[in-house]
Amino acid sequence: MPDATPSSLYRPSLSLLTDLYQLTMAYGYWRKGMQDREAVFHLYFRKPPFAGGYAVCAGLAYAVDWLENLRFTDEDLTYLRSLHGQKGGRLFEEGFLDYLRDLRFSCDVDAIPEGTVVFANEPLIRVRGPLLQAQLVETALLTLVNFQTLIATKAARIREAVGPDDQILEFGLRRAQGFDGGLSATRAAYLGGADGTSNVLAGQQFGIPVRGTHAHSWVMAFEGEEEAFEAYADAFPDDSVFLVDTYDTLEGVRNAIKVARHLRASGHELGGIRLDSGDLTYLSREARRLLDDAGFPAVRIVASNDLEEQLVTALKLEGARIDTWGIGTKLVTAYDQPALGGVYKLAALQRADGSGWDYTVKISEQLAKTSIPGVLQVRRFFNEEGKPVADMLYNTAEPLPEQLTIVDPLDPTRRRPVKSAQYRELLEPVFRQGQRVLDLPTLEESRQKARQEVTSLDPGTRRFLNPHTYPVGLEKSLHDFRTQLILDKRPQRPA
Amino acid sequence: MPDATPSSLYRPSLSLLTDLYQLTMAYGYWRKGMQDREAVFHLYFRKPPFAGGYAVCAGLAYAVDWLENLRFTDEDLTYLRSLHGQKGGRLFEEGFLDYLRDLRFSCDVDAIPEGTVVFANEPLIRVRGPLLQAQLVETALLTLVNFQTLIATKAARIREAVGPDDQILEFGLRRAQGFDGGLSATRAAYLGGADGTSNVLAGQQFGIPVRGTHAHSWVMAFEGEEEAFEAYADAFPDDSVFLVDTYDTLEGVRNAIKVARHLRASGHELGGIRLDSGDLTYLSREARRLLDDAGFPAVRIVASNDLEEQLVTALKLEGARIDTWGIGTKLVTAYDQPALGGVYKLAALQRADGSGWDYTVKISEQLAKTSIPGVLQVRRFFNEEGKPVADMLYNTAEPLPEQLTIVDPLDPTRRRPVKSAQYRELLEPVFRQGQRVLDLPTLEESRQKARQEVTSLDPGTRRFLNPHTYPVGLEKSLHDFRTQLILDKRPQRPA
Repeated sequence: MPDATPSSLYRPSLSLLTDLYQLTMAYGYWRKGMQDREAVFHLYFRKPPFAGGYAVCAGLAYAVDWLENLRFTDEDLTYLRSLHGQKGGRLFEEGFLDYLRDLRFSCDVDAIPEGTVVFANEPLIRVRGPLLQAQLVETALLTLVNFQTLIATKAARIREAVGPDDQILEFGLRRAQGFDGGLSATRAAYLGGADGTSNVLAGQQFGIPVRGTHAHSWVMAFEGEEEAFEAYADAFPDDSVFLVDTYDTLEGVRNAIKVARHLRASGHELGGIRLDSGDLTYLSREARRLLDDAGFPAVRIVASNDLEEQLVTALKLEGARIDTWGIGTKLVTAYDQPALGGVYKLAALQRADGSGWDYTVKISEQLAKTSIPGVLQVRRFFNEEGKPVADMLYNTAEPLPEQLTIVDPLDPTRRRPVKSAQYRELLEPVFRQGQRVLDLPTLEESRQKARQEVTSLDPGTRRFLNPHTYPVGLEKSLHDFRTQLILDKRPQRPA
Repeated sequence: MPDATPSSLYRPSLSLLTDLYQLTMAYGYWRKGMQDREAVFHLYFRKPPFAGGYAVCAGLAYAVDWLENLRFTDEDLTYLRSLHGQKGGRLFEEGFLDYLRDLRFSCDVDAIPEGTVVFANEPLIRVRGPLLQAQLVETALLTLVNFQTLIATKAARIREAVGPDDQILEFGLRRAQGFDGGLSATRAAYLGGADGTSNVLAGQQFGIPVRGTHAHSWVMAFEGEEEAFEAYADAFPDDSVFLVDTYDTLEGVRNAIKVARHLRASGHELGGIRLDSGDLTYLSREARRLLDDAGFPAVRIVASNDLEEQLVTALKLEGARIDTWGIGTKLVTAYDQPALGGVYKLAALQRADGSGWDYTVKISEQLAKTSIPGVLQVRRFFNEEGKPVADMLYNTAEPLPEQLTIVDPLDPTRRRPVKSAQYRELLEPVFRQGQRVLDLPTLEESRQKARQEVTSLDPGTRRFLNPHTYPVGLEKSLHDFRTQLILDKRPQRPA
């Protein structure tokens, strides 16, 4: 019985990071000779997270890496060979495993770059290629993109709450969902708006600035708090932030000031103090007053303790004097909504005789869950000041009419004729026939893009409470086509 | 600027999976010559998750692996050498990096085995050894144990809701928090009570049974639903479960029955049908009736759609006819409480002159957050039927009185004299001076233990709503000592 551990997981193949049904369907398509029928799938979400007005997409770099490394190794195939059905026979015949061994990813992939602001129903990734392959990659794409998009969005909201000038440090590793739940959360949090992290591995792997102070245990390991602060200052005379709440917060601030004076006497300045419990508004104001009165107006106040964007907003409104926000659990687990419900839906399939597309739709009792057929692109229109005003989904496989009209998918009576001349197509080519054709931006570039994109949105779309719904609709001929397709597919039961 | 990707993370060292402050404190201790002072830390949580009455501990196997592989590689040290402070100087001097290069874990570790039922304030792991090392391992132990304990507990609750006979399949990978958020969630879910998973990599790595059906896209890729089912049945004549809700659920059941008849005619039996949307009570009852009437009483009904323990309980009460529960997002992200607030606190430190222990306590405004000093062990008492009746935390470094009394840490007037003669010490030796001394149980063994442990609890402790608080207290002399220590440490402000 194998029992994997983190260290044994460090191996080249993640191709089995998928749901079994991707492989059973692959086997079924292969048996039917359908493996190479050209298919189009879209990855999208149906509602922005946190009851918000937007999301910041992230995770594409991971998804690209996964696709580039998609190979079934001998070890993978040995495992698949070992799987048996209810009656004891092998689940997959050997010819299929041979097929998997030789499989090389050959799809076209178009995607919205990381850091772009995105909305409900917009394909973040479009995969077009052989049915078997385009289906096979579903689970990994969802796993990698759902989570990082969720966390980047959370970080962007926290950035909105703290404002452009304060510092955000992500501190969440110890409460993260597994080691990669920590690592990829740190990456996405930085992309979305954090300034640094406590996570050293993420610093090493992603080049994110790392920051740290000391724990309560440091103070407890010395006779007294002042002695503990002196010892820390001795090790880091120019980089000390003292955690002041081990025994009594304001006493802690007074001890920090004593040591700050000693530091100054020897030519150094205390960097900051950190509050980690209690009434952060009261304590930060008192601490600020004590520090200012003692001649230390530049000492920063770092605060932490289960903070998130709503609490940060409240603290700011109450006049808390906090310069650096340490955000942990609530950020890296997206505590109030720990999953983004991204889906991956088949939208078009070449006819068996090659005579064109059969468009497909998944029907649901709820219109919001009914999928959108086509080979979709997202066109974002801008006004004369360069602000985004509406997004239009359209089918690239059909001609566009002269006059464009956008139809709200949930209320088809809401229609907008397009006036803007300026637009951008959001999906960019990433793979062509399995070869990567896009140089990925650096994490730093994606981070700058995220901030730019969020600030370009209307404040109504950015607010936390009942945000304005940014207009995203279907180009009218796509809307009409989809409506007819649903009517055709849905059984018409007598009332 | 490095930008790590899953494949590049597969490398031997995870030693930097830590918060920077562990390393800055290590440097500080090393500079003060305090690195080898003997220290005792405990890892524990303060409240069971999900407002429940217990937790099922998990993740120790990962933690042990991490500790066994704790080495600072040249690559790790190169990164640490590259870190600079505010004034541009190096954060860590070279002598310290040499020290890290030669560092070998030499602590004693005692821990509660995976699958054991645990309660608030009980040390799940006790680390005793050189201060620098015992501190350094904090973050990784918390990351690995917090998450798996959370998910194992969630799975145990879902097992309670479905009952002992139904099947639970974990389907959550696509919504998991990163690839390891998926993998380690699958492991912990199986340990806590799931019967199988869709996650193929987890199947390969941990030997967990893998299961899968097909997606809506499979049905959409064929002309009609019946044809799609026929094609799937052709590939898996003895292992087919048909997803019936692509267009209309009960029509889907009727199509499934047609194909089940064809299967039977050729000597095979349909395995099941799967419902993934709509009113699961109504649809499962109708589906059961249709299947039974058609002569297929053995065809299983699988249901999924954002299920968790409360919803399962409601469906059961309403008379839903579901045999297999597919649980995804709500299980692998522990949706209603996506983090366990485990902490790691210094509890004792050898005096500099080696003359005995200095006990330490972290004081908080809330008594529940004040830590417990000592070199702790947990003794679980059992009644004559072998049921656990109370747990006692005591300090192994001090003699125990003849007559044991347990004091509730939150209400010291609640005291219980111990009558039971039967008990078990929960913490077992795992490492002695850095060498592992325990053979870890297999995942299967831990899973069986978990089920046994949960069912041995009083139903009042197991219920979801306002569970009975299982008695966990401090041995009276420990309680008295702790109270005095708090009085000594807390500044006594005049009222």
